[in-house]
Amino acid sequence: MKPVIPLITQLPEAETAAWLAALKPALPDCTVVLAADLTAEQRATVEVAIAANPDPADLLALPRLQWVQSLWAGVERLVAETAGAEFAIVKMSDPQLAATMAEAVLAWTLYLHRDMPRYREQQRAQIWQQHFLPLPSQRTIGILGLGDLGKQAAKKLVQQGFTVCGWSRTARAIAGVETMAGEAGLNCILQRSQIVVCLLPLTQTTQHLLNQETLALLPPKAALINFARGAIVDTDALVENLDRGHLSHAVLDVFDTEPLPPHSPLWHHPQITVLPHIAAPTNKQTAALVAATHINRFLTHGEIPPSVNRQRGY
Amino acid sequence: MKPVIPLITQLPEAETAAWLAALKPALPDCTVVLAADLTAEQRATVEVAIAANPDPADLLALPRLQWVQSLWAGVERLVAETAGAEFAIVKMSDPQLAATMAEAVLAWTLYLHRDMPRYREQQRAQIWQQHFLPLPSQRTIGILGLGDLGKQAAKKLVQQGFTVCGWSRTARAIAGVETMAGEAGLNCILQRSQIVVCLLPLTQTTQHLLNQETLALLPPKAALINFARGAIVDTDALVENLDRGHLSHAVLDVFDTEPLPPHSPLWHHPQITVLPHIAAPTNKQTAALVAATHINRFLTHGEIPPSVNRQRGY
Repeated sequence: MKPVIPLITQLPEAETAAWLAALKPALPDCTVVLAADLTAEQRATVEVAIAANPDPADLLALPRLQWVQSLWAGVERLVAETAGAEFAIVKMSDPQLAATMAEAVLAWTLYLHRDMPRYREQQRAQIWQQHFLPLPSQRTIGILGLGDLGKQAAKKLVQQGFTVCGWSRTARAIAGVETMAGEAGLNCILQRSQIVVCLLPLTQTTQHLLNQETLALLPPKAALINFARGAIVDTDALVENLDRGHLSHAVLDVFDTEPLPPHSPLWHHPQITVLPHIAAPTNKQTAALVAATHINRFLTHGEIPPSVNRQRGY
Repeated sequence: MKPVIPLITQLPEAETAAWLAALKPALPDCTVVLAADLTAEQRATVEVAIAANPDPADLLALPRLQWVQSLWAGVERLVAETAGAEFAIVKMSDPQLAATMAEAVLAWTLYLHRDMPRYREQQRAQIWQQHFLPLPSQRTIGILGLGDLGKQAAKKLVQQGFTVCGWSRTARAIAGVETMAGEAGLNCILQRSQIVVCLLPLTQTTQHLLNQETLALLPPKAALINFARGAIVDTDALVENLDRGHLSHAVLDVFDTEPLPPHSPLWHHPQITVLPHIAAPTNKQTAALVAATHINRFLTHGEIPPSVNRQRGY
């Protein structure tokens, strides 16, 4: 009999169906079913599940669950909602996701480097005026977070000739990138970054890491790109720094509440580019293959892939 | 006595002064002077001049002039205004210029690839909606013109994973790029290009090369980037194709008249991004070094650098 792998999700029906359509052919030797369709007998046997915005009760109802494959790279909600549980959480680590995120970082770095918001505003006002364009080597980009995503992004920016520095909790080495760690390292990276790109995981330590005090360290007219999680940035402090001209622009793909509520003043702030969480959309086909590879290795060899440190949160 | 090299230009005073400041240290063994400051005696000895938007009369007044170093890559006006003259015209071919243009092509290709105009419009209307993002390999970019600039641009797009094809008057080979030449080749490239990037020189053959007939060959919802010369595109045909939805967007850095006149409807067309000729600003320092290298080789060895074919126009 084929092992039963439940997909545990509260996504809209069409999304759920699209995930099932990607997962079933990727796992031909398993029976992939929705949590609601599990029999009591099946539920008692499940050792591994796939999760995307799950109802945590559905996971806690699986007595023999050893680990969960998340379909997302960000698992802070899953960690928080299943605190105390003993099963391991494996986040999605798809090379295609890192490549797509690196492309997004390059695209919006060039958007700022090439002054696109200013030229857009000039077009609206019918102003024909050229501005000085520095060489990419004269532009310092600071990457916060040097995991899978940050590393690929840093490499892509180096390839384009930008001066790139980066910060992470623990020290990391990347060719052509000046990297630092720890609190003193963060201050140092912020002080020199004309464009800061946030790719950090959301944890208790990174919540509001970019606040009035740390944003003040950025050089005048610096810009911010947040492609990580909204709560890493103190929005009030960001808006204050944009309003008084210390920062020139912010590109935000993530927010405290998503979708961004209609009453949010961010929608119409002239120095903020609002994106609807599109920097690195998950590619269902490649993500399903990564999940399937992990699950098959577990079923064959009993190996659980490297999992999240529940204390650290990522 | 040092050879006298006149800078012949009608640029505004500040621009002219900035060029002199770059050229003088680059040519320490020459006397660089403005045309207006030449004595009659000096005028009779000049064999090589540097030109940027020159009054053609100033060039024609130099009886021994053998060649002119243009400070611009586009020389169609200089060729037309000095038709019949015997001196050679050498266009600016600065590796930094090609790198900057390639950066611009990448930046605005990503602008279109990443749907930035659509997300900008959604922000204005407070719409939170995600759109499908193809992999770069699923996006075909067609480069028209494969000289210095087109070649570097094509290479940069290939490096980012885009599918790249290209067209030029005479056949050219570029690794990883499907290249074609001739009229049949042009049709073939247009038919498959979701984004067309125009980097052609302006000649009698390329004037209105992109017209009602050729724009109709593009696939539905294709987009155009024109970083070459305004007159290569029939603006009326372009607007008509945008209006009826055959084309999705145009990024225009060059126009029939520059600055773009206030009454032009292009300023406020929602599917047109107007840029004030900023794709590849000349870097005065590197351009001065290229000019100086050419001039020194001529003064030492009598060699005139490869020059423009006056019939062909580039």
